[in-house]
Amino acid sequence: MKFEARKHGIPTDMEEDDDGEVIFGKSYYHPKAAGPAREGGEELFVPPLNFAIVDNGVFRSGFPDVANFSFLQTLKLRSVLCLCPEQYPEANMDFLRSNGIRLFQFGIEGAKEPFVNIPEDTIREALKVVLDVQNHPLLIHCKSGKHRTGCVVGCLRKLQRWCLTSVFHEYQRFAAAKTRVSDQRFMELFDISSLNHLPLSFSCSRTP
Amino acid sequence: MKFEARKHGIPTDMEEDDDGEVIFGKSYYHPKAAGPAREGGEELFVPPLNFAIVDNGVFRSGFPDVANFSFLQTLKLRSVLCLCPEQYPEANMDFLRSNGIRLFQFGIEGAKEPFVNIPEDTIREALKVVLDVQNHPLLIHCKSGKHRTGCVVGCLRKLQRWCLTSVFHEYQRFAAAKTRVSDQRFMELFDISSLNHLPLSFSCSRTP
Repeated sequence: MKFEARKHGIPTDMEEDDDGEVIFGKSYYHPKAAGPAREGGEELFVPPLNFAIVDNGVFRSGFPDVANFSFLQTLKLRSVLCLCPEQYPEANMDFLRSNGIRLFQFGIEGAKEPFVNIPEDTIREALKVVLDVQNHPLLIHCKSGKHRTGCVVGCLRKLQRWCLTSVFHEYQRFAAAKTRVSDQRFMELFDISSLNHLPLSFSCSRTP
Repeated sequence: MKFEARKHGIPTDMEEDDDGEVIFGKSYYHPKAAGPAREGGEELFVPPLNFAIVDNGVFRSGFPDVANFSFLQTLKLRSVLCLCPEQYPEANMDFLRSNGIRLFQFGIEGAKEPFVNIPEDTIREALKVVLDVQNHPLLIHCKSGKHRTGCVVGCLRKLQRWCLTSVFHEYQRFAAAKTRVSDQRFMELFDISSLNHLPLSFSCSRTP
């Protein structure tokens, strides 16, 4: 019912975190949203919700929609890493195909506390994709860009040997009022030892 | 009096925004803070408060202290752009000197609403430094990394032609509960036309 009501328009709650409630489908994006924003005749870019640069060649965001495509083109992405389990929307698939962008999908169910169960193996596999410079420039995204994306980035920061306070502070900047203790516990307990041998190509890497 | 009470220890309110209240001086940093954080015998990095990557070669943060120096070394900075008017602390000057980092200081008085008066010319001069790739990698910082830094980055985003909603959203991620309408008004009204001719070397630039 919820899906029926939503599928002919852009959901108004993209800012809200409602992991697992929205099914992405063909009709998810309203055609009127496709046009670029303009100011003084010049096109304005609309970065996806919660967009930010994680490190050289790695970006993070919420679920991109049609309005974000012209901005995403400026990033010259080689890959997109999607952490949602739902089928990738056709409009997004078209965008990836026409820009030669590879999709990696590591579906993690959206969940609310206290029923959050983040699969460590999936996060580990996702991190391997993130660490492989052959996949850069790469965009990591889930739905809101807060929890699943926040956990992947947080584990990456541990690999970069950030102290936990800074890892959590960054996580909280995106999760804000939706900060989850369970996510923070996951990041704290995440064992980086099996990934420690992989090279880090980042600006903030282990070796000065 | 406030200064006297503070100058022999690390202020406990670095997380709080109290622009203009703290005078930076020689004894600002407690020597015990100098040692790196450690975990399992390995050094952990402590990024400065509100640290983030703005774009290729440009970083932002709150005021760095001794605990952050080993992390900052990993960034291989060529310049630091400080937006505070107070004399730069001796420990920080030593760090810059010994790492061959150039200091640009554009002092803007910290102020609280409704008495915020952001000098447009100063922000414009600061932006010229940020846009010059010869200064990269560059760290922009003020005290908390929220307001003055937020305004410079926001104006940079306008140059990158981000829509205002995204500019504000990013600003608010850092300013959080300290978000200022006056800063947002400043960014909205800031005239980018005199800077529009300067090349943008960024990942998210005007030309795809």
